[in-house]
Amino acid sequence: MPWPKSIITTTNKFVVTNNFKIQISNKDQGKVNYAATKFLRRLSNRTGIFLKEGFPFKKDNNSALKITFDTVAQPSLGVDESYTLEVNATNIQLNAKTDIGAIRGLETLLQLLKTTANESYFTGTKINDAPRFLWRGLLIDAARHFQPVAVIKRNLEAMAAVKMNVFHWHLTDDQGFRIESKVYPKLHKLASDGLYYTQHQIKNVVTYATRLGIRVIPEIDVPGHASAILTAYPELGSKDNYTYSLQRNAGVFDPTLNPTIDKTYKFLENLFTEVSSLFPDKYFHIGGDENEGKHWTENKKIAAFKKKHQLKTNHDLQTYFNIKLEKILSKLGKKLMGWDEIMTKNMPTTAVIHSWRGTNEGLKESTLIAAAKKGYPTVLSNGYYIDRMQSVVHHYKVDPIGNAKLTPAQRANILGGEATMWGELVTPLTIDSRIWPRTAAIAERFWSPKNVTDIDHMFKRLSVVSFQLEELGITHIRNKDVILRNLTQNQPTKSLEVLSAISEPLKIYTRNAGGTEYQTYSPFTLFADACTADAPDALQFNSYVNQYITQPTVKKKQQLTYFFKKWISGYKAFQELKNNTKLQKIAPLYKNLNQVSGLFLNALKSGKSNAELTSALKKLSRPVEDVEIVIVNALEKLNKSFQ
Amino acid sequence: MPWPKSIITTTNKFVVTNNFKIQISNKDQGKVNYAATKFLRRLSNRTGIFLKEGFPFKKDNNSALKITFDTVAQPSLGVDESYTLEVNATNIQLNAKTDIGAIRGLETLLQLLKTTANESYFTGTKINDAPRFLWRGLLIDAARHFQPVAVIKRNLEAMAAVKMNVFHWHLTDDQGFRIESKVYPKLHKLASDGLYYTQHQIKNVVTYATRLGIRVIPEIDVPGHASAILTAYPELGSKDNYTYSLQRNAGVFDPTLNPTIDKTYKFLENLFTEVSSLFPDKYFHIGGDENEGKHWTENKKIAAFKKKHQLKTNHDLQTYFNIKLEKILSKLGKKLMGWDEIMTKNMPTTAVIHSWRGTNEGLKESTLIAAAKKGYPTVLSNGYYIDRMQSVVHHYKVDPIGNAKLTPAQRANILGGEATMWGELVTPLTIDSRIWPRTAAIAERFWSPKNVTDIDHMFKRLSVVSFQLEELGITHIRNKDVILRNLTQNQPTKSLEVLSAISEPLKIYTRNAGGTEYQTYSPFTLFADACTADAPDALQFNSYVNQYITQPTVKKKQQLTYFFKKWISGYKAFQELKNNTKLQKIAPLYKNLNQVSGLFLNALKSGKSNAELTSALKKLSRPVEDVEIVIVNALEKLNKSFQ
Repeated sequence: MPWPKSIITTTNKFVVTNNFKIQISNKDQGKVNYAATKFLRRLSNRTGIFLKEGFPFKKDNNSALKITFDTVAQPSLGVDESYTLEVNATNIQLNAKTDIGAIRGLETLLQLLKTTANESYFTGTKINDAPRFLWRGLLIDAARHFQPVAVIKRNLEAMAAVKMNVFHWHLTDDQGFRIESKVYPKLHKLASDGLYYTQHQIKNVVTYATRLGIRVIPEIDVPGHASAILTAYPELGSKDNYTYSLQRNAGVFDPTLNPTIDKTYKFLENLFTEVSSLFPDKYFHIGGDENEGKHWTENKKIAAFKKKHQLKTNHDLQTYFNIKLEKILSKLGKKLMGWDEIMTKNMPTTAVIHSWRGTNEGLKESTLIAAAKKGYPTVLSNGYYIDRMQSVVHHYKVDPIGNAKLTPAQRANILGGEATMWGELVTPLTIDSRIWPRTAAIAERFWSPKNVTDIDHMFKRLSVVSFQLEELGITHIRNKDVILRNLTQNQPTKSLEVLSAISEPLKIYTRNAGGTEYQTYSPFTLFADACTADAPDALQFNSYVNQYITQPTVKKKQQLTYFFKKWISGYKAFQELKNNTKLQKIAPLYKNLNQVSGLFLNALKSGKSNAELTSALKKLSRPVEDVEIVIVNALEKLNKSFQ
Repeated sequence: MPWPKSIITTTNKFVVTNNFKIQISNKDQGKVNYAATKFLRRLSNRTGIFLKEGFPFKKDNNSALKITFDTVAQPSLGVDESYTLEVNATNIQLNAKTDIGAIRGLETLLQLLKTTANESYFTGTKINDAPRFLWRGLLIDAARHFQPVAVIKRNLEAMAAVKMNVFHWHLTDDQGFRIESKVYPKLHKLASDGLYYTQHQIKNVVTYATRLGIRVIPEIDVPGHASAILTAYPELGSKDNYTYSLQRNAGVFDPTLNPTIDKTYKFLENLFTEVSSLFPDKYFHIGGDENEGKHWTENKKIAAFKKKHQLKTNHDLQTYFNIKLEKILSKLGKKLMGWDEIMTKNMPTTAVIHSWRGTNEGLKESTLIAAAKKGYPTVLSNGYYIDRMQSVVHHYKVDPIGNAKLTPAQRANILGGEATMWGELVTPLTIDSRIWPRTAAIAERFWSPKNVTDIDHMFKRLSVVSFQLEELGITHIRNKDVILRNLTQNQPTKSLEVLSAISEPLKIYTRNAGGTEYQTYSPFTLFADACTADAPDALQFNSYVNQYITQPTVKKKQQLTYFFKKWISGYKAFQELKNNTKLQKIAPLYKNLNQVSGLFLNALKSGKSNAELTSALKKLSRPVEDVEIVIVNALEKLNKSFQ
């Protein structure tokens, strides 16, 4: 995963011994050496084989795996990432145009590893692979909750494992400014609560990403989402005598840069000059989203400015602002990228349109297609908002192009997509479980041929990839247990595991609706934080229910009975725990589940439902502590089948 | 934990509400603010309370918790860390001489938190606390296996939680040189495999530690343990025409700096000048251990030099070397510290003797006492070698002074102790489980009064502290599951948990005896790596066996039966797993356990042993895959009781 462009499986197998060695092209300047060294560690750690050689060779050394490529490339838009891989019984050959292609191929090879009682081997294959889209990104919002360098690095490793190539770093927002600025030090000193990346750390992360063949795009969100900037430099704000401060809640806020004064542009020119020097990539994201212009409307001087410059609406004013920014960036050799609000009639088509709105926001189609048709290069995030906590199936089904009819030139404008990990409800403890494994399926959507759409096949491969991400340090599985132990205060967590396997956090922003329930420093060690999208038992149970309703065999009844008994005994174990305030709050949920399960056991025996069951089921459908039981729909169907 | 000097528990309790606020002294320059902010996060995350205020105040704000102190202090030897803490029904007062004392007290307060079904509260107390020893350290060896900054930082947090105040950073050894050197860049470029700390990172860690009231002592180990230095600068070696390279195995190696040439001292003076500028602490560790002088003896020029300078032995030559270093460091305003080999007759008593040898090494008492009597300030590590994988009980019982009779001046020379985490067999994945929770008990030995020695009481408190260390990011519990999942390749791990709860990695360097089994890049994701000292079920079972032998009641028989059945059903589940090469290797161990358990069930019924049981037990006593079953002694006793 992602599934290759072309794959032929042979009956060969290459058995791994402790003599396994890798030869890399002597053109390598570090990327392949790093990837191959890591490959050896992962191979050894996964199989337990004590490899004699812990590092790859540049000279010919009878290595079984030979890696060649033509040129060393810097990660940049359009770089060749194709490779061919051939696994035979006695040797493995990996060839690519660039070193980046070579490291993509190494990830594929490691996924071919199988192990039996007596041996570990790579399955024989001939693979010819290349990505469908050039831009395969993940956005991490480090502004709403700061994410330390270690979090970023492990996620870069995971991105590389699924062949993603753009890390979009959302560095500023109303809740914090997260880069050290030497030009405007009040930004990180007054507007970060002490939580920011030093410039050295930024450079270190960029170097790290580069070695993985990943581009890094910074985002400085302006003119809205600017509370942090204005906390430090209120004189740039659109409202006089206003006390700006860091926002502690989520939402869209009024503080906005003043686009009518010269010092705003001087400030941004200096800041962008400083920031862009840290990021070698050609693209620079200026945000530009969700500016409602309230403070602009309220300011008489701004109204006068608009009149003078014949800017009818606040949108026109924002375009005026964006065009100025485009020129600043252009001088710095950077291309402007912004959220789709920037796509207004005077915006030059050199700007990249980042499409975040689509049918969910009441449009006929995503703004991506409109942008491509208007001649803008464009990247899709609509449909890939992983913070909405929806099923992986939902995201997997979103194809950037879909059925849109485009000319070749228009098609070429569609660069690819980005999953967006907005940070209002995630901390370093939980962020991995919100990104992974779902983003691996999104990565497949961006890399693999359009016709790779089989959901069952995806789920099967996703569960393997999910587990293997642990190898790279991803914490989505292990940290769930940490939260459950926190909930029980170090008592057995089995009963909570049982409950969490059918529970999911509320979706599509109904958790924290209005942005007022949670603040930056609220506890994110609640039961909802331990739960994830695609609750595993629910997937299984819901499928059993469908099968049972279609054909109620004895075996299928047993499968359902198994789950009801599991939930009843889970509740029994839960009740035996020494209580605390956090357990107390989820007790009603478990109690309802226990009651419903008992009633369904009776109904399965008698074949009849009753009013008590229907009423208990209704109670179970109500969220508790921002968590919903995601078998309720299936149970309702099952209940109906008894009526 | 560590237990305070004086504590009076009252019947009061302070109930925590969402209105809980902290006021800190306006003298604070950051340490208390950081600790208090973190305190609020931990309080909120542990209780689930949505605190209205996420940050402490400097102004009076009706805060329930008030923290005062007299002066801001830099972490340094002898700084005042005392505090008093009073928890009443309506307010909490924490007073200290220094800001460092204040943050020590905050850790105590958080340990007083209790939670019931309906409320969370701090138990009423009056505490008057101060440490017994000035130097309470943890050594982390980042040379044998590199440990990224994130590993260091989370361990610094854990150290602060148990009031430790010295981080000894072992930065160079035969296996790697881990600091960026701008003066001698070949050191990190040729002798680190790319795994080193940049100077920026070093400074960042020192700042981080300082904020936690922790001193950082760098160690540059010379003249032995020098393979890495000589890989970069072979001209400083004691053997001509010798190809130096990084060691991949563990052990004591021959490469040694040449103490008879000026350029060695010029090099060290430049290097120490560079390194000491990164570490504000007064102390600088030069290693000085385990130099067997083989290359010195083999070098004719060195022999001639010895003769000329009337240095009879290699030990004398090393003293000559050390005294030169002492002068270099003195010019830099630093005090030399070294392992106890440096304690030779001409060594000035300004040097700090780090005692690592004692009765284990065939001495009558630890070198600590000898050093103290000779007038050297001294720090004890003998008895605190946590990489030996011994029980916490062993370390807890080691008192630095013991029954030694010392004058007040001699007693004053004993600064304290350091737990040593040598890195041959640990990676970022496993290091926490080798340090914690045992080091928390060692920290208590260093902080608490000498008479705090109750083992059962220690264990009870240790299990709580161990769990709470997760809150700070320590991974000792969660990463065990990661290794078990790796072993099963994502199948259920319950059966391995059962086995690991009575299994421990081989102790006292019998794992990797001779240093040849494991290399730097060997797999450290084996069953032995998932196991820890103080296997929990073994502690319980061994105690049950003793009770049963003393008085074989029905209840005690049931307790033993429970465990035998647990192991039998564990083996059954283990057999049901899809096999792989790693599981295959531990299968014999589990099979033996299963057999022994069945035979003991029979013996418990019949009251009789037999030859089959005795023979099976003998087989079970043999280590498998560097793991031993630590209930064997108890089983042998039980078996004898049937004979």
